[in-house]
Parts: sequence; structure tokens; C-alpha cells
Amino acid sequence: MCSSDLRAYALALDAADPLAGFRDRFMIADERLVYLDGNSLGRLPRSTLDRLAWAVTAEWGEELVRGWSRWVTLAREVGDLIGTRLLGARPGEVVLADSTTVNLYKLAAAALAARPGRRVIVTEEDNFPTDRYVLQGLAAAAGYQLRMVPADPDTGVSADAVAAAVDSAVALVSLSHVAYRSGALVDLPAVTEIAHRAGALVLWDLSHSAGSVPVGLAAAGVDLAVGCTYKYLNGGPGAPAYLYVRGDLAGKLQQPIWGWFGQRDQFAMAADYDPAPGIDRFCVGTPPVLASYAVAEGAGLVAEAGIEALRAKGMALSGYLIELADAWLTPLGFRVATPREAARRGAHVALAHPRAWQVCQAMIDAGVLPDYRTPDRLRLGPAPLYTRFVDVYDGLARLRDLVAAGRHHDYPATPARVT
Amino acid sequence: MCSSDLRAYALALDAADPLAGFRDRFMIADERLVYLDGNSLGRLPRSTLDRLAWAVTAEWGEELVRGWSRWVTLAREVGDLIGTRLLGARPGEVVLADSTTVNLYKLAAAALAARPGRRVIVTEEDNFPTDRYVLQGLAAAAGYQLRMVPADPDTGVSADAVAAAVDSAVALVSLSHVAYRSGALVDLPAVTEIAHRAGALVLWDLSHSAGSVPVGLAAAGVDLAVGCTYKYLNGGPGAPAYLYVRGDLAGKLQQPIWGWFGQRDQFAMAADYDPAPGIDRFCVGTPPVLASYAVAEGAGLVAEAGIEALRAKGMALSGYLIELADAWLTPLGFRVATPREAARRGAHVALAHPRAWQVCQAMIDAGVLPDYRTPDRLRLGPAPLYTRFVDVYDGLARLRDLVAAGRHHDYPATPARVT
Repeated sequence: MCSSDLRAYALALDAADPLAGFRDRFMIADERLVYLDGNSLGRLPRSTLDRLAWAVTAEWGEELVRGWSRWVTLAREVGDLIGTRLLGARPGEVVLADSTTVNLYKLAAAALAARPGRRVIVTEEDNFPTDRYVLQGLAAAAGYQLRMVPADPDTGVSADAVAAAVDSAVALVSLSHVAYRSGALVDLPAVTEIAHRAGALVLWDLSHSAGSVPVGLAAAGVDLAVGCTYKYLNGGPGAPAYLYVRGDLAGKLQQPIWGWFGQRDQFAMAADYDPAPGIDRFCVGTPPVLASYAVAEGAGLVAEAGIEALRAKGMALSGYLIELADAWLTPLGFRVATPREAARRGAHVALAHPRAWQVCQAMIDAGVLPDYRTPDRLRLGPAPLYTRFVDVYDGLARLRDLVAAGRHHDYPATPARVT
Repeated sequence: MCSSDLRAYALALDAADPLAGFRDRFMIADERLVYLDGNSLGRLPRSTLDRLAWAVTAEWGEELVRGWSRWVTLAREVGDLIGTRLLGARPGEVVLADSTTVNLYKLAAAALAARPGRRVIVTEEDNFPTDRYVLQGLAAAAGYQLRMVPADPDTGVSADAVAAAVDSAVALVSLSHVAYRSGALVDLPAVTEIAHRAGALVLWDLSHSAGSVPVGLAAAGVDLAVGCTYKYLNGGPGAPAYLYVRGDLAGKLQQPIWGWFGQRDQFAMAADYDPAPGIDRFCVGTPPVLASYAVAEGAGLVAEAGIEALRAKGMALSGYLIELADAWLTPLGFRVATPREAARRGAHVALAHPRAWQVCQAMIDAGVLPDYRTPDRLRLGPAPLYTRFVDVYDGLARLRDLVAAGRHHDYPATPARVT
């Protein structure tokens, strides 16, 4: 097909998209900007400002401290919205709390304490930095061995590679469901079963899969999970994270940060810490009320669209992106660095290019927002809730044109500062 | 004086109040409501909604992920506002992060690690629950002894009592600067010196003193401190907390939750955790951007008023409250359960009454918002930034009248659910 045919094809796909109406639910300040970084920071839902304004004025401003009668259940309510509608968890298994990293720390530490005598933590060498660091910290503090599963930078971690690393010395297997750089999707049910067969607990980071891929926590019998809400869940920059603990496990685990929001009968203010019976024991300090409402708005839109429909569109969008990359970008020195089989990737696509950082800077000036990831990856995340096929077309066409013209050579080859 | 004279006196005090203008900077939805719980949840500044709306629409909505070039320094900027203007810290010694409890955990753990061989943590038996719990958790995890300084429920902890508990086995002394229930002010310079003479580190919880009492962290050579921003700093329900580490100490301590926002050269995404050189190493996950702007607004108003002026008004307001309590409430079975010497208390006052919970409920229905604290305390926090002397007068007059009429007997004697 020639270019105009390809663009017409994109427009036809958009016309047939059952989720097309959701784009209007988001603020689009600049129609010419192609936003391909929804996997880093989701767009602003139009309803969020109103919800925040209500929470600020009618709740905080008018109810003052009386608002706590409502706010005290927010973390559970928003947790259940995310858990039951997007992650396949049961009610009461997910709660909004802290940051992803703090949640990783609490749950990993709880898992290690629940497997005394086992001295190995399994993760993968290409896991997201904060996941690796938090496990390194726990390992260093208590003398655990950190065993790294080899990962292919393009296709991620295979269940076989995990199986080869897991034995009866392993206390915890902690992986990301969708790889932050390549978008490779790990076989969550298979890895969970491998961990369980060896008597280990499993802890998943869902930051790049929540809202883009069905997770099926209960179906797979997952023990523990965490994730952020500022990517596909559109909760806003630095929005609070969530954590999941399987219902039958919650009362048996103890996390290390003992705080008053994890205490049974909190306002009795008893002398000794006595953890709440269920998921609440994984809470710590006073929950972030205003930010929780923003998460409710963002995640609510995802739930309304439905995770199966989002998954279908995400596979189609990323497939179309890969098609265009093959046609236009491979001849210009790019390589698709994401699994080509749709079932083996999440919603974003990585392209390898030796001058990826320079290309990234040139794209921003050309009105396309991608992401750069070390050492040589361009990461393109067309969030299925609000990204059109024509956005993918326009973004990749501009990328093709600027690289073909060598415009990226005008930019310095310095490292990035973008989350 | 008769009642009308006393009210006229209150109005005269308000007329002479140099901070009187600040009340208009806050949303007052109901002029008849007497809010005496600013020490639990500060009022909503009028400017906060506009600041949030700007952050939401112009930054998140329009700048999208590019906003991080600005947001990445927010935690330091708001930290410095609080630290240098309100806490007597030096630039770069305070950062906004996590919750008070998570910060307590990080800093207490870092302190213990810095004093190997010392196996005792000193706190006080009446410290705020979350402070006690977090120390209990650390003690239980690593076999520390928790040594409790005796505290008088009305007058708090004396420096002499701390001195008697501190010896060369002590790694850490952790206390609240202003007691959450009684409002008793601990002698921070004296206790800090006692800890230092014994070679221990000191960690202060400033939640009830920040914005109400000058703290003088640098002058006293304090090692570590934490605090919340939703009380006198008016940051909103569940607003992010802050932490302080003395500048020369920051690079020498290591906290246990290793996250990507604590990493040197974060976006190099290196294989191994390598903590940032200064205060940043005490950060963990992605910072809460929107909530940080609300803190900047609330704390900014406090800084504008000036901590010395707020302290003077706080002493006068609480003194006036105690005067009225002596005159009206002592005959009705109340007892002032806060130090009578203004220099020995923070900005709130506790009244003991055997039916405090019932009285608290009756007050709410009479349009006065106090706080209840176990087992028998009414806690009255006339935040000096926006509370008038006439509010104290009206609140206590209503309290007097309802108790004199026995109206509190109409309420059930069940425990509370208010932070």
C-alpha cells in the first residue's frame, strides 16, 4: 500500500473501533501532538478535575475532619475497583497504598519471613530498576542470595528459564508481568505454578500490565502483586500504588512497617501492634485521600471500557505499529525489540536504534512523545483507551521522515531524564 | 467578668491580632461552625484548588510526561520550604516523601544500622501509636530492646526522665516533639544533647509541632526528624509527609527501602543500587506530584505568617482556652490535662472528662468540632493561623452549656473513628 492508503486504513480501523468514544473522555490539549507515552504517564481524564474539586471543596473544605468517616474506606474501595475489574482479584484482596516500591518492599519482606530457612530470591536481570533495588536491599540486609533469571532484551523471560532457576532453596520469585523496556509478557500462570511447585511465594509487578492486559490473579492463584496507577490507569503523576495479597494468605503474613493504619481497631490506640486480620495489615500510614479520588476516576474509565476490549485493541495497535515499523523504519536502521506474537507482549513496543536518545529528542520536537530507555531503545506506548490508529500512523510517519532526513543528528547524545 | 465581657475581650483580642487577616485565606464554608481540630486536619486554603487545577490541567493535562522536568525537583523544593522556613533546617535537609510512618521506619532503621553493637531504642510509653508500632516492628525484627521513658499523661516527658533512660547501649532516641494527646512540649535541645552525649542518634516526630512551634533543628543539631503535613501545614487529608536528615549525616546513613528515586543517576537504570549522595537517598518511589502542590500551598501560608508570630498567637489562644476552661468547665467535672505553662505546651489543649466521648459527640451536634482521644480526653486544637479568640469563646461556651444541661448523656458511650 502507498502512504495515503495506509493512512486511510488507519482511519478505517478507528471508525470501526468500539472504544473510539473513550478518547473524548480525556483532555486533548493539542490535537497535533501524538502521545505515545501513555505507558509512562496516562492522560488526564476530563472528569478528574471535577472529582478533585469536589473532594477538595465539599469534602475537605466543608466536612473538614468529619470527612474521615468516608475517606477511611477509600483505599479499599479503589483497591477493589482495580482488583476486581482489572486484575481478576476477589473483593478485599487489593488496597491502594504507598508507592509501588514501598509495596514491593513490604510484600517481599513478608514473603521472605513466611519461608524461613529458604535463602534465595529469584528475579530477572532486566527487571525494572526499583524492583531489582528493593530486592537487593532486602537480600543485603538479611543475607539472601539474589538469583537472576537470564532475560532476552527483546523477548523477556521464558517460563523455562524461571523453572531452571527455581528450587527448594527459593523463598520468593519476583518478576514484572510486562517488561518495562521490551513490553514482553511473562507467562504469569506458568511461572506462578513453577514457584508454587517449589514451595516458593510469587510477587508480580503489574505496573505495565494493569489496564492493558488481563491479569487473572485469582485464576492463577497468585500470592502477591503490586503496581502503579499512573500509567494505563490514568491516576496522575506519582499517583498512589496498590498491592494485592491473596485472601487466604493475608492473615498469615506480616509486613515489616508497622503503622497505625495496619492496626486492628486502630483508634483504640493500644499499647502493642496487633495487625488487622485481612488486607488492612499491609497498610501503614494515613492514606492519600485526594490522590485516591484521581485514581478512582482514571481506573474507573479503564473498568468501563473493559479489560478484554482494551487488550484486543492494544494487540491491534501494537501490531499495526510493528507493521509500519517493518515497512518504514527497518530500512532506516531500526529493529523491532518486542515480541512479534501479540499474545507475548503487552501494549507497548520497543524499537532499537543506535542513536535512540537523539531520535527521541527529535521526535519530541516533531510533536511526537515517545520514551527513551537505556541503552538504545525507543519505547512507544499507544495506550488503547485513547490512542487512535491514525495517531500511530502519524507518529511513525513523522519518525520515519525525521530519521530519513537525518534530523536526529542535530541533537546531543546525552542521557534522558524522563520517567 | 460576666459572659458578655468575656466575649468582648475575645473580640478585642481578635481585633489586635496581627495574623487576623489569614483567616480569609481559608475556605470557611459554615461561619457558625467552630473548628477546633486544626491539629488533626488543617483547613483548606482558598488558593489550593486553583493550584491543583493548574497542576492537573496545565501540567499533567498539557505537558503530559514532559512535566517531569519540573516535578522531579518538587519534593526538594517543598521540603526546603518546610525545612528552612518552619523547622529551622538548612537547605537540602528536608524532603517531601511517603507517609510519616514510612519515614519513621526508614530513618529509625538507618539510625540503628549506624550504631552497630547498641541494642536499645528509647521512646516513651505515651508516644503516638504509629511511632510506637514502627519501633516495635524494628525491635522485633532485629532483637532490639525497646526502653520506655515514663510519661505523665498531662505533662509529658521530662528531659530528666529521658536522661535516666539513656546510656551507652542506646542506639536511638525517638520522641514526639509535641505530645499528640496532651500537647506537652518536650525540651528538644536538651533531649538531643542527652542522646548525643551518650553517642545515640535522635529522631523527632514533628507532626504536632511543625507550623505551631519553632523547632530549631539545625540549632539543636538534631540528627533525624519526620512529620506530617495535614495538620498545621494544611496540606489536605493524607497529604505526603516529610523527612529531615542533618546535612553532614545524610551521606553516611543508609535506609532499608532501596528504590529508584533514591538512586544516584536514576535514569541510567544501573544494575546495582548506589544511593544518591545526599537527602535524595531517603526517597524511594515516584513522588506524589499533585498532592505536593497542595502541601506547597498550605505550608506556604504558614511560612508567610511566620512561625514566631504563630507561636505567640498559639500560646495566647491556648492560654485563653485554659482560662475559660478553669472558669466554666472545672466546676462541671473537667480537668485541664495540658501543661499550664505556655512554654511547655504546643498549640492544642486536652481536657479530661470521664464522659469525654459522649461530650465529643454532643459538641459536634452543637456545631463545635473537637477531637476525642482515648481514654477520656477531649482534644481542642485552635490552629493559630485561622482560629479567632471568639471561636475559642464560642466553642467553650457551647461546651459549657451542653454539659451543664446534661445533653451529652443522650449519646452512646462507644469509641471514636476520627483521625
